[in-house]
Amino acid sequence: MTLSAVEVNQIKQAPAAENILPAVLHRWSPRAFADKPVSDADLKTIFEAVRWTASSSNEQPWRFIVGRQGSETYTKILGSLVESNQLWAGKAPVLMLGVANGLTQKNTPNGSALYDLGQAAATLALQATALGLAVHQMGGYSRDKAREAFGIPAEYHLGAAIALGYQGEPSLLTVERMLQIETSPRTRKELNEFVLSGWGAALHLG
Amino acid sequence: MTLSAVEVNQIKQAPAAENILPAVLHRWSPRAFADKPVSDADLKTIFEAVRWTASSSNEQPWRFIVGRQGSETYTKILGSLVESNQLWAGKAPVLMLGVANGLTQKNTPNGSALYDLGQAAATLALQATALGLAVHQMGGYSRDKAREAFGIPAEYHLGAAIALGYQGEPSLLTVERMLQIETSPRTRKELNEFVLSGWGAALHLG
Repeated sequence: MTLSAVEVNQIKQAPAAENILPAVLHRWSPRAFADKPVSDADLKTIFEAVRWTASSSNEQPWRFIVGRQGSETYTKILGSLVESNQLWAGKAPVLMLGVANGLTQKNTPNGSALYDLGQAAATLALQATALGLAVHQMGGYSRDKAREAFGIPAEYHLGAAIALGYQGEPSLLTVERMLQIETSPRTRKELNEFVLSGWGAALHLG
Repeated sequence: MTLSAVEVNQIKQAPAAENILPAVLHRWSPRAFADKPVSDADLKTIFEAVRWTASSSNEQPWRFIVGRQGSETYTKILGSLVESNQLWAGKAPVLMLGVANGLTQKNTPNGSALYDLGQAAATLALQATALGLAVHQMGGYSRDKAREAFGIPAEYHLGAAIALGYQGEPSLLTVERMLQIETSPRTRKELNEFVLSGWGAALHLG
């Protein structure tokens, strides 16, 4: 018996904790996307939020190449994905590629470029979640293919490929392994595994 | 005449836009921090939010070394900052260092480590803002000093140093240049500078 999209969302929801941003608890990375387009207005809202992300020396190194289903841009991004991602990502109404300028305005290397692109992507994901949309970031794609397809200059670092759309019914997934991931709870390390008072020592919090 | 903290917050607020997460609009990076500690409960809430950040293959490469004012950890982080950051950051009640594991659980290089640490830091900043706290990330510190002070293994990448606390009155800042930055509006690129349909081509949105 396959679970419904609504049931899956309940499974993926992080445990409620007081005062946590709802978008943080609700955000997860589906593979099943519904056949429903994303409006221009929602795309604008998402990137207006991304705009205000913090970055080192306010360099704002992030760029996002955005393709709607059916466009040449979309086809190029889809074609650069590894096969296991192509299997589901081609249903998403929007595919994007996050890219970071590795040079500062002073033409020196920007060591924070990918870090700041990550900050922008996290903002993108939370803002999309707040709008009822879903985001799935993918590391699994050919950077060489994507760089060549778009003519991205060497000084730009490639971040993640990103699927954006509305969560779909899990039954859209035809691969058993994907269905299993789609319907399993999210898991995370405990706080004492990553909040430290020194190297190898957990921070004691209350 | 020096502006008050409340007046500065109005200046730093991003222009209101429908449906944008309030924490995105309110977040900015002060240098003036009030003499007021951060509770254990708020730190827990912040890291509980960070926990649910997305990461490549769910590696969760982020680690945060967290020091409260007066602790040895705090002194080490403060001592690694460049002088222009030491001038103001020593007033923040909490200093942190974000670090990313450059190896996956399979012991292969994790090319997304810094990107995912950036995602975690953005979540941290937005959750802190939602709690009424302020965050200022700093790239300006000696990675060598910090790595040596904490004995951080070579496979871990160093991200940003992070000041956390409550925004203070701008009059706390004694350096004219810092006061000027503290009281100027935030500036960002326009959407058509970073939302693209292809390389060098802005995406047309409505």
